[in-house]
Amino acid sequence: MTPSSIRALTFDVFGTVVDWRGSIIREGRALGKQKNLKADWAAVADAWRDGYKPAMDRVRKRQLPWMSIDQLHRLILDDVLAKLRIEGLTPEDKDRFNLAWHRLRPWADARPGLKRLKKRYVLATLSNGNVSLLVDMARKAGLPWDCVLSAELFRHYKPDPEAYLGAAALLGLQPSEVMMVAAHKDDLQAAKRCGLRTAFVRRPMERGTGVKADLSPDRSFDFNADDFNDLASQLEA
Amino acid sequence: MTPSSIRALTFDVFGTVVDWRGSIIREGRALGKQKNLKADWAAVADAWRDGYKPAMDRVRKRQLPWMSIDQLHRLILDDVLAKLRIEGLTPEDKDRFNLAWHRLRPWADARPGLKRLKKRYVLATLSNGNVSLLVDMARKAGLPWDCVLSAELFRHYKPDPEAYLGAAALLGLQPSEVMMVAAHKDDLQAAKRCGLRTAFVRRPMERGTGVKADLSPDRSFDFNADDFNDLASQLEA
Repeated sequence: MTPSSIRALTFDVFGTVVDWRGSIIREGRALGKQKNLKADWAAVADAWRDGYKPAMDRVRKRQLPWMSIDQLHRLILDDVLAKLRIEGLTPEDKDRFNLAWHRLRPWADARPGLKRLKKRYVLATLSNGNVSLLVDMARKAGLPWDCVLSAELFRHYKPDPEAYLGAAALLGLQPSEVMMVAAHKDDLQAAKRCGLRTAFVRRPMERGTGVKADLSPDRSFDFNADDFNDLASQLEA
Repeated sequence: MTPSSIRALTFDVFGTVVDWRGSIIREGRALGKQKNLKADWAAVADAWRDGYKPAMDRVRKRQLPWMSIDQLHRLILDDVLAKLRIEGLTPEDKDRFNLAWHRLRPWADARPGLKRLKKRYVLATLSNGNVSLLVDMARKAGLPWDCVLSAELFRHYKPDPEAYLGAAALLGLQPSEVMMVAAHKDDLQAAKRCGLRTAFVRRPMERGTGVKADLSPDRSFDFNADDFNDLASQLEA
Protein backbone atom coordinates (compact mmCIF):
# COMPACT_ATOMS: atom_id res chain seq x y z
CA MET A 1 0.00 0.00 0.00
CA THR A 2 1.49 3.32 -1.09
CA PRO A 3 0.32 6.85 -0.31
CA SER A 4 -0.65 7.30 -3.96
CA SER A 5 -3.55 4.88 -3.60
CA ILE A 6 -5.11 7.02 -0.85
CA ARG A 7 -7.42 9.86 -1.83
CA ALA A 8 -9.00 10.96 1.45
CA LEU A 9 -8.20 10.88 5.14
CA THR A 10 -10.99 10.65 7.70
CA PHE A 11 -10.14 11.72 11.22
CA ASP A 12 -11.36 10.71 14.58
CA VAL A 13 -11.57 13.98 16.49
CA PHE A 14 -11.89 13.68 20.30
CA GLY A 15 -8.42 12.74 21.50
CA THR A 16 -6.94 12.41 18.03
CA VAL A 17 -7.23 16.02 16.82
CA VAL A 18 -8.19 17.83 20.01
CA ASP A 19 -7.21 17.57 23.67
CA TRP A 20 -10.64 17.04 25.23
CA ARG A 21 -9.28 16.48 28.74
CA GLY A 22 -7.13 19.58 29.00
CA SER A 23 -9.86 21.67 27.39
CA ILE A 24 -12.63 20.48 29.71
CA ILE A 25 -10.43 20.97 32.77
CA ARG A 26 -9.67 24.54 31.67
CA GLU A 27 -13.34 25.31 31.03
CA GLY A 28 -14.31 23.74 34.34
CA ARG A 29 -11.81 25.85 36.24
CA ALA A 30 -13.11 29.00 34.59
CA LEU A 31 -16.66 28.01 35.48
CA GLY A 32 -15.66 27.22 39.06
CA LYS A 33 -14.05 30.59 39.45
CA GLN A 34 -17.05 32.38 38.01
CA LYS A 35 -19.56 30.49 40.19
CA ASN A 36 -17.31 30.23 43.23
CA LEU A 37 -17.37 26.42 43.12
CA LYS A 38 -14.62 24.07 44.24
CA ALA A 39 -14.35 20.83 42.31
CA ASP A 40 -11.83 18.37 40.94
CA TRP A 41 -12.25 19.37 37.28
CA ALA A 42 -9.93 16.61 36.08
CA ALA A 43 -12.29 14.12 37.71
CA VAL A 44 -15.21 15.87 36.00
CA ALA A 45 -13.48 15.62 32.60
CA ASP A 46 -12.65 11.95 33.09
CA ALA A 47 -16.10 11.00 34.36
CA TRP A 48 -17.79 12.95 31.58
CA ARG A 49 -15.72 11.16 28.99
CA ASP A 50 -16.18 7.78 30.68
CA GLY A 51 -19.94 8.16 30.34
CA TYR A 52 -19.65 8.69 26.61
CA LYS A 53 -19.09 5.19 25.29
CA PRO A 54 -21.78 3.49 27.42
CA ALA A 55 -24.28 6.20 26.37
CA MET A 56 -23.47 5.73 22.67
CA ASP A 57 -23.69 1.99 23.09
CA ARG A 58 -27.22 2.37 24.40
CA VAL A 59 -28.09 4.28 21.21
CA ARG A 60 -26.26 1.72 19.07
CA LYS A 61 -28.27 -1.08 20.68
CA ARG A 62 -31.49 0.89 20.23
CA GLN A 63 -32.06 1.11 23.98
CA LEU A 64 -32.22 4.85 23.45
CA PRO A 65 -33.65 6.63 20.41
CA TRP A 66 -31.13 8.47 18.22
CA MET A 67 -29.56 11.27 20.23
CA SER A 68 -26.74 13.57 19.24
CA ILE A 69 -23.53 13.79 21.22
CA ASP A 70 -24.65 17.21 22.45
CA GLN A 71 -27.73 15.56 23.90
CA LEU A 72 -25.80 12.60 25.33
CA HIS A 73 -23.15 14.88 26.83
CA ARG A 74 -25.87 16.90 28.53
CA LEU A 75 -27.45 13.78 30.06
CA ILE A 76 -24.07 12.49 31.24
CA LEU A 77 -23.20 15.86 32.75
CA ASP A 78 -26.18 15.63 35.12
CA ASP A 79 -24.94 12.23 36.30
CA VAL A 80 -21.37 13.42 36.71
CA LEU A 81 -22.33 16.49 38.73
CA ALA A 82 -24.58 14.40 40.96
CA LYS A 83 -21.93 11.71 41.45
CA LEU A 84 -19.22 14.23 42.26
CA ARG A 85 -21.63 16.29 44.41
CA ILE A 86 -21.05 19.51 42.50
CA GLU A 87 -23.93 21.82 43.27
CA GLY A 88 -24.91 25.38 42.47
CA LEU A 89 -25.13 25.27 38.68
CA THR A 90 -28.35 26.41 37.04
CA PRO A 91 -29.72 24.53 34.01
CA GLU A 92 -28.44 27.43 31.87
CA ASP A 93 -24.94 27.08 33.40
CA LYS A 94 -25.01 23.38 32.54
CA ASP A 95 -26.18 24.05 28.98
CA ARG A 96 -23.31 26.49 28.52
CA PHE A 97 -20.76 24.15 30.08
CA ASN A 98 -22.02 21.37 27.80
CA LEU A 99 -20.91 23.47 24.83
CA ALA A 100 -17.32 23.28 26.10
CA TRP A 101 -17.11 20.26 23.77
CA HIS A 102 -17.62 22.67 20.84
CA ARG A 103 -14.56 24.61 21.96
CA LEU A 104 -11.99 21.84 22.48
CA ARG A 105 -8.47 22.91 21.57
CA PRO A 106 -6.31 21.03 19.08
CA TRP A 107 -3.02 19.34 19.89
CA ALA A 108 -0.15 21.63 18.86
CA ASP A 109 0.75 19.60 15.77
CA ALA A 110 -2.83 19.19 14.53
CA ARG A 111 -3.32 22.41 12.58
CA PRO A 112 0.10 22.52 10.89
CA GLY A 113 -0.06 18.78 10.14
CA LEU A 114 -3.55 19.05 8.63
CA LYS A 115 -2.48 21.97 6.48
CA ARG A 116 0.32 19.86 5.01
CA LEU A 117 -1.94 16.83 4.52
CA LYS A 118 -4.64 18.93 2.85
CA LYS A 119 -2.37 19.75 -0.08
CA ARG A 120 -2.42 16.13 -1.17
CA TYR A 121 -5.51 14.54 0.39
CA VAL A 122 -9.16 15.31 0.97
CA LEU A 123 -9.54 15.82 4.71
CA ALA A 124 -12.76 14.96 6.51
CA THR A 125 -13.75 14.47 10.09
CA LEU A 126 -15.33 11.13 10.90
CA SER A 127 -16.39 11.71 14.44
CA ASN A 128 -19.21 10.67 16.71
CA GLY A 129 -19.54 14.37 17.52
CA ASN A 130 -22.50 16.06 15.86
CA VAL A 131 -22.08 18.31 12.85
CA SER A 132 -22.65 21.61 14.66
CA LEU A 133 -20.13 20.66 17.35
CA LEU A 134 -17.51 19.86 14.70
CA VAL A 135 -18.26 23.03 12.74
CA ASP A 136 -17.98 25.24 15.83
CA MET A 137 -14.72 23.53 16.81
CA ALA A 138 -13.21 23.87 13.34
CA ARG A 139 -14.04 27.58 13.17
CA LYS A 140 -12.60 28.25 16.60
CA ALA A 141 -9.48 26.10 16.19
CA GLY A 142 -8.87 26.86 12.52
CA LEU A 143 -9.04 23.22 11.40
CA PRO A 144 -9.00 23.12 7.60
CA TRP A 145 -11.47 20.32 6.89
CA ASP A 146 -12.70 19.89 3.34
CA CYS A 147 -15.78 18.24 4.69
CA VAL A 148 -17.37 17.67 8.10
CA LEU A 149 -18.61 14.08 8.31
CA SER A 150 -20.24 12.79 11.44
CA ALA A 151 -21.98 9.69 12.75
CA GLU A 152 -25.00 12.00 12.92
CA LEU A 153 -25.30 11.85 9.11
CA PHE A 154 -25.65 8.08 9.20
CA ARG A 155 -27.46 7.80 12.53
CA HIS A 156 -24.92 5.16 13.42
CA TYR A 157 -22.14 5.76 15.89
CA LYS A 158 -18.69 4.37 15.30
CA PRO A 159 -17.73 1.53 15.46
CA ASP A 160 -20.88 0.61 13.47
CA PRO A 161 -19.80 -0.15 9.88
CA GLU A 162 -22.41 2.26 8.48
CA ALA A 163 -20.32 5.19 9.68
CA TYR A 164 -17.12 4.14 7.87
CA LEU A 165 -18.83 2.90 4.72
CA GLY A 166 -21.15 5.92 4.67
CA ALA A 167 -18.18 8.28 4.79
CA ALA A 168 -16.45 6.56 1.85
CA ALA A 169 -19.70 6.64 -0.15
CA LEU A 170 -20.27 10.36 0.46
CA LEU A 171 -16.69 11.04 -0.59
CA GLY A 172 -17.36 9.10 -3.80
CA LEU A 173 -14.54 6.69 -3.04
CA GLN A 174 -13.92 3.02 -2.52
CA PRO A 175 -13.21 2.16 1.14
CA SER A 176 -9.65 1.24 0.15
CA GLU A 177 -9.08 4.81 -1.09
CA VAL A 178 -9.93 6.23 2.35
CA MET A 179 -7.68 6.12 5.38
CA MET A 180 -9.00 6.41 8.91
CA VAL A 181 -6.70 8.32 11.26
CA ALA A 182 -7.22 7.79 14.97
CA ALA A 183 -5.49 7.56 18.33
CA HIS A 184 -7.74 4.64 19.31
CA LYS A 185 -7.03 1.16 18.08
CA ASP A 186 -10.64 -0.06 18.31
CA ASP A 187 -11.75 2.69 15.93
CA LEU A 188 -9.05 1.70 13.45
CA GLN A 189 -9.83 -2.00 13.75
CA ALA A 190 -13.48 -1.31 12.91
CA ALA A 191 -12.46 0.87 9.95
CA LYS A 192 -10.14 -1.86 8.74
CA ARG A 193 -12.93 -4.44 8.85
CA CYS A 194 -14.82 -2.14 6.44
CA GLY A 195 -11.89 -2.09 4.03
CA LEU A 196 -10.51 1.35 4.92
CA ARG A 197 -6.81 2.01 5.32
CA THR A 198 -5.64 2.86 8.81
CA ALA A 199 -3.18 5.20 10.49
CA PHE A 200 -2.56 5.12 14.22
CA VAL A 201 -1.40 8.35 15.83
CA ARG A 202 -0.03 8.17 19.37
CA ARG A 203 -1.57 10.64 21.79
CA PRO A 204 0.23 9.87 25.06
CA MET A 205 -1.37 12.81 26.88
CA GLU A 206 -4.98 12.08 25.97
CA ARG A 207 -5.81 10.89 29.48
CA GLY A 208 -3.23 13.00 31.27
CA THR A 209 -0.16 11.81 33.05
CA GLY A 210 -0.11 8.65 35.07
CA VAL A 211 -2.55 6.68 32.93
CA LYS A 212 -1.12 3.79 31.01
CA ALA A 213 -2.43 3.73 27.45
CA ASP A 214 -1.64 1.36 24.60
CA LEU A 215 0.64 3.52 22.50
CA SER A 216 2.70 0.81 20.83
CA PRO A 217 2.92 0.80 17.05
CA ASP A 218 0.83 -1.97 15.52
CA ARG A 219 1.91 -3.47 12.22
CA SER A 220 -1.65 -4.43 11.37
CA PHE A 221 -2.24 -0.72 10.64
CA ASP A 222 -0.90 0.82 7.44
CA PHE A 223 0.86 3.64 9.27
CA ASN A 224 1.91 4.40 12.83
CA ALA A 225 2.80 8.01 13.53
CA ASP A 226 3.98 10.13 16.44
CA ASP A 227 1.83 13.10 15.46
CA PHE A 228 0.22 14.74 12.41
CA ASN A 229 3.51 16.19 11.15
CA ASP A 230 5.07 12.75 11.24
CA LEU A 231 2.00 11.37 9.47
CA ALA A 232 2.31 14.06 6.77
CA SER A 233 5.95 13.11 6.22
CA GLN A 234 5.15 9.41 6.00
CA LEU A 235 2.34 10.17 3.57
CA GLU A 236 4.63 12.34 1.43
CA ALA A 237 2.48 15.42 1.91
CA MET B 1 -34.78 41.31 10.79
CA THR B 2 -31.21 42.36 11.51
CA PRO B 3 -27.97 40.60 10.56
CA SER B 4 -27.33 39.87 14.24
CA SER B 5 -30.18 37.34 14.32
CA ILE B 6 -28.53 35.28 11.56
CA ARG B 7 -25.98 32.64 12.53
CA ALA B 8 -25.40 30.68 9.33
CA LEU B 9 -25.68 31.20 5.59
CA THR B 10 -26.55 28.29 3.31
CA PHE B 11 -25.65 28.70 -0.34
CA ASP B 12 -27.14 27.40 -3.50
CA VAL B 13 -24.10 26.56 -5.62
CA PHE B 14 -24.78 26.02 -9.37
CA GLY B 15 -25.31 29.49 -10.80
CA THR B 16 -25.12 31.25 -7.43
CA VAL B 17 -21.49 30.50 -6.48
CA VAL B 18 -20.12 29.05 -9.71
CA ASP B 19 -20.56 29.77 -13.41
CA TRP B 20 -21.70 26.36 -14.61
CA ARG B 21 -22.38 27.52 -18.18
CA GLY B 22 -19.03 29.16 -18.87
CA SER B 23 -17.22 26.27 -17.18
CA ILE B 24 -19.00 23.54 -19.15
CA ILE B 25 -18.47 25.42 -22.42
CA ARG B 26 -14.75 25.72 -21.66
CA GLU B 27 -14.45 22.02 -20.76
CA GLY B 28 -16.45 21.06 -23.86
CA ARG B 29 -14.17 23.06 -26.12
CA ALA B 30 -11.10 21.42 -24.60
CA LEU B 31 -12.67 18.00 -25.10
CA GLY B 32 -13.62 18.86 -28.70
CA LYS B 33 -10.10 19.92 -29.48
CA GLN B 34 -8.65 16.78 -27.93
CA LYS B 35 -11.05 14.43 -29.71
CA ASN B 36 -11.26 16.45 -32.92
CA LEU B 37 -15.03 16.97 -32.53
CA LYS B 38 -17.04 19.94 -33.69
CA ALA B 39 -20.02 20.84 -31.55
CA ASP B 40 -21.95 23.80 -30.22
CA TRP B 41 -20.71 23.51 -26.65
CA ALA B 42 -22.98 26.30 -25.43
CA ALA B 43 -25.93 24.23 -26.67
CA VAL B 44 -24.48 21.23 -24.83
CA ALA B 45 -24.17 23.21 -21.60
CA ASP B 46 -27.72 24.56 -21.88
CA ALA B 47 -29.26 21.20 -22.77
CA TRP B 48 -27.34 19.45 -19.99
CA ARG B 49 -28.57 21.96 -17.47
CA ASP B 50 -32.12 21.89 -18.86
CA GLY B 51 -32.25 18.16 -18.22
CA TYR B 52 -31.38 18.64 -14.58
CA LYS B 53 -34.62 19.83 -13.04
CA PRO B 54 -36.87 17.25 -14.80
CA ALA B 55 -34.47 14.48 -13.76
CA MET B 56 -34.49 15.63 -10.13
CA ASP B 57 -38.26 15.94 -10.22
CA ARG B 58 -38.50 12.30 -11.24
CA VAL B 59 -36.46 11.41 -8.14
CA ARG B 60 -38.52 13.76 -5.98
CA LYS B 61 -41.74 12.07 -7.18
CA ARG B 62 -40.19 8.65 -6.60
CA GLN B 63 -40.40 7.75 -10.31
CA LEU B 64 -36.68 7.07 -10.04
CA PRO B 65 -34.86 5.63 -7.02
CA TRP B 66 -32.50 8.00 -5.22
CA MET B 67 -29.70 8.97 -7.56
CA SER B 68 -26.93 11.47 -6.99
CA ILE B 69 -26.42 14.46 -9.26
CA ASP B 70 -23.33 12.75 -10.65
CA GLN B 71 -25.52 9.85 -11.70
CA LEU B 72 -28.28 12.08 -13.06
CA HIS B 73 -25.78 14.24 -14.97
CA ARG B 74 -24.34 11.12 -16.56
CA LEU B 75 -27.77 9.92 -17.71
CA ILE B 76 -28.66 13.37 -19.06
CA LEU B 77 -25.35 13.59 -20.91
CA ASP B 78 -26.22 10.52 -22.98
CA ASP B 79 -29.50 12.16 -24.01
CA VAL B 80 -27.83 15.48 -24.80
CA LEU B 81 -25.13 13.91 -26.95
CA ALA B 82 -27.71 11.83 -28.83
CA LYS B 83 -30.01 14.81 -29.35
CA LEU B 84 -27.21 17.06 -30.59
CA ARG B 85 -25.72 14.21 -32.66
CA ILE B 86 -22.30 14.43 -31.06
CA GLU B 87 -20.49 11.18 -31.73
CA GLY B 88 -17.08 9.76 -31.12
CA LEU B 89 -16.88 9.84 -27.33
CA THR B 90 -16.07 6.61 -25.50
CA PRO B 91 -17.85 5.78 -22.23
CA GLU B 92 -14.62 6.76 -20.46
CA ASP B 93 -14.59 10.14 -22.24
CA LYS B 94 -18.17 10.70 -21.10
CA ASP B 95 -17.38 9.71 -17.51
CA ARG B 96 -14.51 12.20 -17.49
CA PHE B 97 -16.60 14.97 -19.09
CA ASN B 98 -19.31 14.30 -16.50
CA LEU B 99 -16.82 15.31 -13.82
CA ALA B 100 -16.59 18.78 -15.37
CA TRP B 101 -19.35 19.62 -12.85
CA HIS B 102 -16.78 18.97 -10.07
CA ARG B 103 -14.53 21.62 -11.61
CA LEU B 104 -16.94 24.52 -12.13
CA ARG B 105 -15.31 27.89 -11.60
CA PRO B 106 -16.63 30.49 -9.18
CA TRP B 107 -17.89 33.93 -10.13
CA ALA B 108 -15.12 36.47 -9.56
CA ASP B 109 -16.73 37.91 -6.40
CA ALA B 110 -17.55 34.52 -4.83
CA ARG B 111 -14.28 33.72 -3.08
CA PRO B 112 -13.52 37.21 -1.71
CA GLY B 113 -17.16 37.66 -0.67
CA LEU B 114 -17.26 34.29 1.10
CA LYS B 115 -14.03 35.08 2.95
CA ARG B 116 -15.60 38.27 4.30
CA LEU B 117 -18.85 36.53 5.22
CA LYS B 118 -17.03 33.67 6.96
CA LYS B 119 -15.66 36.00 9.61
CA ARG B 120 -19.13 36.58 10.96
CA TYR B 121 -21.28 33.66 9.81
CA VAL B 122 -21.09 29.90 9.50
CA LEU B 123 -20.96 29.18 5.77
CA ALA B 124 -22.43 26.00 4.32
CA THR B 125 -23.38 24.82 0.89
CA LEU B 126 -26.96 23.70 0.48
CA SER B 127 -26.85 22.30 -3.01
CA ASN B 128 -28.48 19.51 -4.92
CA GLY B 129 -24.97 18.56 -6.00
CA ASN B 130 -23.57 15.53 -4.21
CA VAL B 131 -21.03 15.84 -1.42
CA SER B 132 -18.01 14.63 -3.42
CA LEU B 133 -18.83 17.07 -6.23
CA LEU B 134 -19.00 19.96 -3.77
CA VAL B 135 -15.80 18.89 -2.00
CA ASP B 136 -13.85 18.61 -5.26
CA MET B 137 -15.17 21.98 -6.38
CA ALA B 138 -14.32 23.69 -3.10
CA ARG B 139 -10.75 22.34 -3.13
CA LYS B 140 -10.18 23.40 -6.73
CA ALA B 141 -11.83 26.82 -6.41
CA GLY B 142 -10.68 27.58 -2.86
CA LEU B 143 -14.19 28.05 -1.48
CA PRO B 144 -13.94 28.39 2.32
CA TRP B 145 -17.00 26.42 3.44
CA ASP B 146 -17.30 25.56 7.11
CA CYS B 147 -19.50 22.65 6.15
CA VAL B 148 -20.57 20.93 2.94
CA LEU B 149 -24.30 20.22 3.11
CA SER B 150 -26.08 18.58 0.23
CA ALA B 151 -29.50 17.25 -0.68
CA GLU B 152 -27.67 13.91 -0.76
CA LEU B 153 -27.53 13.92 3.05
CA PHE B 154 -31.31 14.13 3.29
CA ARG B 155 -32.14 12.13 0.16
CA HIS B 156 -34.46 14.98 -0.75
CA TYR B 157 -33.69 17.43 -3.50
CA LYS B 158 -34.50 21.10 -3.09
CA PRO B 159 -37.17 22.46 -3.13
CA ASP B 160 -38.36 19.64 -0.81
CA PRO B 161 -38.65 21.08 2.71
CA GLU B 162 -36.54 18.25 4.14
CA ALA B 163 -33.44 19.79 2.56
CA TYR B 164 -33.86 23.23 4.16
CA LEU B 165 -35.05 21.96 7.53
CA GLY B 166 -32.41 19.24 7.54
CA ALA B 167 -29.67 21.80 7.01
CA ALA B 168 -30.85 23.97 9.89
CA ALA B 169 -31.06 20.91 12.15
CA LEU B 170 -27.53 19.74 11.32
CA LEU B 171 -26.25 23.24 12.01
CA GLY B 172 -27.98 23.10 15.40
CA LEU B 173 -30.02 26.21 14.59
CA GLN B 174 -33.60 27.33 14.29
CA PRO B 175 -34.65 27.87 10.66
CA SER B 176 -34.96 31.61 11.39
CA GLU B 177 -31.26 31.72 12.31
CA VAL B 178 -30.27 30.41 8.87
CA MET B 179 -30.32 32.43 5.67
CA MET B 180 -30.53 30.80 2.25
CA VAL B 181 -28.51 32.61 -0.41
CA ALA B 182 -29.45 31.90 -4.02
CA ALA B 183 -29.72 33.38 -7.50
CA HIS B 184 -33.01 31.54 -8.04
CA LYS B 185 -36.24 32.84 -6.62
CA ASP B 186 -37.98 29.46 -6.45
CA ASP B 187 -35.21 28.12 -4.20
CA LEU B 188 -35.60 31.13 -1.90
CA GLN B 189 -39.37 30.89 -1.84
CA ALA B 190 -39.14 27.24 -0.75
CA ALA B 191 -36.60 28.15 1.94
CA LYS B 192 -38.84 30.95 3.14
CA ARG B 193 -41.80 28.58 3.47
CA CYS B 194 -39.60 26.54 5.86
CA GLY B 195 -38.89 29.60 7.99
CA LEU B 196 -35.39 30.37 6.73
CA ARG B 197 -34.24 33.90 5.96
CA THR B 198 -33.55 34.65 2.32
CA ALA B 199 -31.02 36.60 0.26
CA PHE B 200 -31.35 36.95 -3.48
CA VAL B 201 -28.13 37.47 -5.43
CA ARG B 202 -28.42 38.59 -9.06
CA ARG B 203 -26.41 36.51 -11.51
CA PRO B 204 -27.20 38.16 -14.85
CA MET B 205 -24.68 36.02 -16.75
CA GLU B 206 -25.86 32.63 -15.47
CA ARG B 207 -27.46 31.73 -18.81
CA GLY B 208 -25.16 33.82 -20.96
CA THR B 209 -26.06 36.91 -22.91
CA GLY B 210 -29.38 37.29 -24.71
CA VAL B 211 -31.44 35.31 -22.20
CA LYS B 212 -33.91 37.30 -20.21
CA ALA B 213 -33.84 36.30 -16.53
CA ASP B 214 -35.84 37.65 -13.61
CA LEU B 215 -33.18 39.73 -11.86
CA SER B 216 -35.43 42.29 -10.20
CA PRO B 217 -35.08 42.80 -6.45
CA ASP B 218 -37.97 41.26 -4.55
CA ARG B 219 -39.01 42.80 -1.25
CA SER B 220 -40.39 39.48 -0.03
CA PHE B 221 -36.75 38.41 0.47
CA ASP B 222 -34.76 39.74 3.42
CA PHE B 223 -31.87 40.90 1.25
CA ASN B 224 -31.28 41.56 -2.44
CA ALA B 225 -27.65 41.84 -3.48
CA ASP B 226 -25.66 42.47 -6.63
CA ASP B 227 -22.96 39.98 -5.70
CA PHE B 228 -21.29 38.38 -2.65
CA ASN B 229 -19.29 41.48 -1.80
CA ASP B 230 -22.46 43.55 -1.78
CA LEU B 231 -24.10 40.86 0.38
CA ALA B 232 -21.18 40.97 2.82
CA SER B 233 -21.55 44.72 3.11
CA GLN B 234 -25.29 44.52 3.68
CA LEU B 235 -24.71 41.81 6.30
CA GLU B 236 -22.08 43.93 8.04
CA ALA B 237 -19.39 41.31 7.52
